[in-house]
Order: sequence, then structure tokens, then C-alpha cells
Amino acid sequence: MQAVANLMTGGSSGPKYLTGDKSSIDGFIDKFDVFLFDCDGVLWSGDHLFERVPATIQMLRDKGKQLVFVTNNSTKSRADYKKKFDSMGISANEEEVFGSSYSAAVYIARILKLEPPKNKVYVLGESGVEQELQAENVPYCGGTDPLLRREMLPEDFRHVADGSLLDDDVAIVLTGLDYHPSYLKYALGMAYLRRGAKFLATNIDSTLPSAGSLFPGAGSTSAPLIKATGQEPLALGKPSQAMMDAIEGKFQFDRKKACMIGDRLNTDIQFGIEGGLGGTLCVLTGVSKKEEFLEKGAQVVPSAYVDELGDLLG
Amino acid sequence: MQAVANLMTGGSSGPKYLTGDKSSIDGFIDKFDVFLFDCDGVLWSGDHLFERVPATIQMLRDKGKQLVFVTNNSTKSRADYKKKFDSMGISANEEEVFGSSYSAAVYIARILKLEPPKNKVYVLGESGVEQELQAENVPYCGGTDPLLRREMLPEDFRHVADGSLLDDDVAIVLTGLDYHPSYLKYALGMAYLRRGAKFLATNIDSTLPSAGSLFPGAGSTSAPLIKATGQEPLALGKPSQAMMDAIEGKFQFDRKKACMIGDRLNTDIQFGIEGGLGGTLCVLTGVSKKEEFLEKGAQVVPSAYVDELGDLLG
Repeated sequence: MQAVANLMTGGSSGPKYLTGDKSSIDGFIDKFDVFLFDCDGVLWSGDHLFERVPATIQMLRDKGKQLVFVTNNSTKSRADYKKKFDSMGISANEEEVFGSSYSAAVYIARILKLEPPKNKVYVLGESGVEQELQAENVPYCGGTDPLLRREMLPEDFRHVADGSLLDDDVAIVLTGLDYHPSYLKYALGMAYLRRGAKFLATNIDSTLPSAGSLFPGAGSTSAPLIKATGQEPLALGKPSQAMMDAIEGKFQFDRKKACMIGDRLNTDIQFGIEGGLGGTLCVLTGVSKKEEFLEKGAQVVPSAYVDELGDLLG
Repeated sequence: MQAVANLMTGGSSGPKYLTGDKSSIDGFIDKFDVFLFDCDGVLWSGDHLFERVPATIQMLRDKGKQLVFVTNNSTKSRADYKKKFDSMGISANEEEVFGSSYSAAVYIARILKLEPPKNKVYVLGESGVEQELQAENVPYCGGTDPLLRREMLPEDFRHVADGSLLDDDVAIVLTGLDYHPSYLKYALGMAYLRRGAKFLATNIDSTLPSAGSLFPGAGSTSAPLIKATGQEPLALGKPSQAMMDAIEGKFQFDRKKACMIGDRLNTDIQFGIEGGLGGTLCVLTGVSKKEEFLEKGAQVVPSAYVDELGDLLG
């Protein structure tokens, strides 16, 4: 049990509260060369930027730290994210952003490496997924195609059943958060899966925090395919270690000198702990509450925590 | 184990094959006063009527049997079903049809009996559900409302979160098969459930057989709400015994003198066995294969089976 406890706390004896403790903060930051940031709930909540975030990011840059922004949001591409960083006044470049759509596109293009032309991806999701597939030269269909945002007609049942509405080159079904679900899109996804397509997901978060409440997440909008086929997708966002492997592959760093910063224990902090990072830092501006990791028997415990990211300025 | 085995076979020692065995058929029919029929896969498959079905129904009527048509299809009302029977040339009246939408409406109106005005139902489903609620004088919203078949706008997130898009009188979320899912409809359903609404489903069939293939069923189109909230609905279609209780309440019969006829072991046959009916008859024109109940250790075993319903004519 001791080994497990150590694993789950990233090797330390318990979470250290850093807010207001200047020397502990400096010691914590000095331990790491690389910081992986979750975005929503850490840097901002929707369109609301948390205080002192741009200055905190700048402080870390001034100390020469490598920064990577790791997000499960599949609706935005890295280019979309760059625009959001700019609008928030946070210095970042596109290469530093690692989204679940990008993670999925990299996995498909560089790990699965299916032979063309039988390498097409049927997308249940938004343009973020499409843009990242395009950037990796992976062919796709579905997605934001307006022809699929229509009513299921009686003849569609026949044409899905006899395969005439299906694309013979589809070998993968990839689901992300889809703001435009339709019965036709689900019927097509189900037909491809029943025909043997691989089932991937950018992420399977059940909820999406927005406007101070919770909405259906990517795991919920893809749930009809899971229920209808009895198959579970391979999820490529946090906490999947496929995403950590892809990040390490791209940025080449020593995991022991890297720290994951996030607001969700069961995605961000678990992602860092399972990835064997040197540390994890929980901020209390998002989903998880400190009671969840301070209580006895807590399953996922960060190495340290602060009230908000700006507290790292001391 | 003997008791369990007896329960699962409806008290007999094993399934009897009736096709071509005139005296066994007559003996079987004579045992029952009431026959409960599943429709799709038993009488017809989609728009294809199986052979000799109208004559078989007429033969049972001539023998004075009470017939009840029990279907999980929630998209059609009893009135819609009556039209289908007419078009197929099968004699039936509306009162003999018992659909999962009707079952749900009866449960809401006569069992839950919520105080107006806080008794409104938010429907995720088609007009079959709406018609049956209307027939029981239960107020509803959602459903086929064309205003909800639109894109989720940025301000919708705010208006769902602050409650201004919600109807204060909604106390129940009822899901059926929905051919017109939308993110907005799921977001509203999730918000009502998070606010404490009861969660009901006409049925939770994962798949819908059509055109010789399988499509997403009511359990699949409602899966986003289940995943997003972590709540499971009370399902009022087969094999839920709430439906059997409602059927018995309406038709008043001796369960030992009733037989369930169906094509699916895990809905129809299980429904009859768990309901303590005198017998169950499996037809092989639908989903389940005889190997599934003839194999050793089969979980759900009918009392008898025929290749097709028309075989009852002898």
C-alpha cells in the first residue's frame, strides 16, 4: 500500500499548500524544467481570465521553463487556441498547444499509419478535429459536413443498411465533442463500427464546464455509439497515456523534471501521476475541491496545490 | 438452481418446438386465454408482413382469445399503430395496442400523479410520446418542438445555466427514441435532471432493427443524458414489470392463463417469464436465434418456439 500511496502522490508524502509560502513556491518551481498546463479552469473559465495569469506565464518563461498547454477540448484546433491565447493577452505559440484533436490526429497518422486509400476517418465532432487531421494529411468525412445535419429519411435506413451511403475507405471512427449531433450521423458511425472500423475518441469527458454550469461533454455526445455497438473507444485525451507519450515524443523532456498543472483530479492530476511526472500541482479555480484530495483515502492526490495559478508569483 | 431453472423456462422442463406438430400446437393454444404479442420481428419486419399472420390472428380471435399487442416502439402512438395494423390487413383495435409511450404516460398520470402545475414532462422523443401524454392529460414540452431543432448558440449556454431557458414546471424528463437529437435538447434535459427532475424512459433498447440491419435505439439516443448526469432512467417498456403491471391493470387477466409471444429473449421472453405468465413463445423471425436458448446454461428460455408465427395455423 505504501508504494501505491507514493505513486498516487507522485512520490511525496502529501499535497503541500504553496499559496503565500514564497520559499516553498520557489523551491517547487526550481525542481522543474517543463510545465504542462491544463487551460480551462486553470488559466481561464470560458471567457473569464483568472487574475495574474499572463504575469505568471511570463515569470515562468523568464526562468527559462518549457511550457506546454494540454487541453481535452476537441472543438478547437491549435490555431484556434493560439487566437484564444492572444485575445486573453497570454504569450504562447501554436507549437506549445497540445489538444486532444491534435493528439488523435498524431496517433492516427504516426502510430496507426494505415495504408491509403483505406485510411479515411469518419468524424463525429467539430472543425478542431478536422483541422488537425488535415494538418497530418489524414483524409476524413463526416464532421461539419452540412449534408449530414439533416433529418433521417426513410430511404436513409435502406441506404445505410445496404452500404450505399457509406464510404468504403473509412477505417476509423473518431468522436469528439459534437455540437451538431444527428440521428443520421449516429447511424453512419454505428454502421462503420459494425463493419469493423477502429473506434477512437479525442476524449471521453462526460461533462463540459461552461457559463458556471455543466453541459454534455465529448463522452456524452459520443455515448449513443458506445451504447448502440457495445464498443468502447480508445480515448486519446487526458488521462490517456497515449497523449503523454505523444507530448513527450514531440517535446523530448525528462519526465522527472516535468510538472502537470490542472484543476481536475481524475483527468489532469491522474494524467501527471500515471505519466510518472516529477510533480503535479492542483489549482482550486476549477472542478475539483481541496476536500477531495485532503480527505483520508483520497485516490488521486497532487504533490502540491495553490488557490489559484497567480499565487505562483508569490 | 431447480427453482431458478423452472422460473426461467416458465415452469416447463425446456422449450418445445411446435412447428408442424398439430396436436402440440392445439394443446399449447388451449392452455391460454390471453396472448401478448410483440410486433416487430413477430408480425412484421419494418414494412414486410410475415406470411399467414392475418390468418393466425383471426384464428386466435375465432377461438375467443384476448389479444394484446405490446411494443417498445415509442415513436408511434396507439392510434399510429392502429393505422399500421389496418395497412397490413391485420384486424386489431386501438385498445388492444400497448406501446411503451402509452405505458410511460399511464405511469406518469396514474402512478406518479404529480400535483399540477409542477407536473410537466420534458420529452426527448417523437410524437408518439406526445400523443400518449396528451391522451392522459399530462402537460409536456420539448419533444417535436421545432424551436429546439436548432444550433446551440453561445447565449444558450448562459440561458441554460441561469435557468432562463428552462420551464419551471418541469418535474420529469422522459426519453424515447429521438430521430431529431440536438445539443440544445440534451443540454436542457441535463439541466432538468441536475435540478432534480425524475428520469424516465419509454424503453432503453440499445438498437432498433430496420431494413435488415441495426440502428441506434431509444437507449442509445438517450445515452448522452445518462453519461452526462450519471443517472439511470426508470425504463417503462419491456422487460420492465411496470409495463406488465399496467397491462394487467388494464385488461384484468389471470397471468397463468396468459402467454407472451416475441422474438427477443432479453426483452419479450424475459418480460413474460419475470411477469409470471403461464407461458412464453419465441418466434425465429426476429433478433434471437434458437441456438441462444437451446444451448446449455442459456439464461432465458421460452416454454415453446416456432419458426414463424403462421406455424400456429398447423
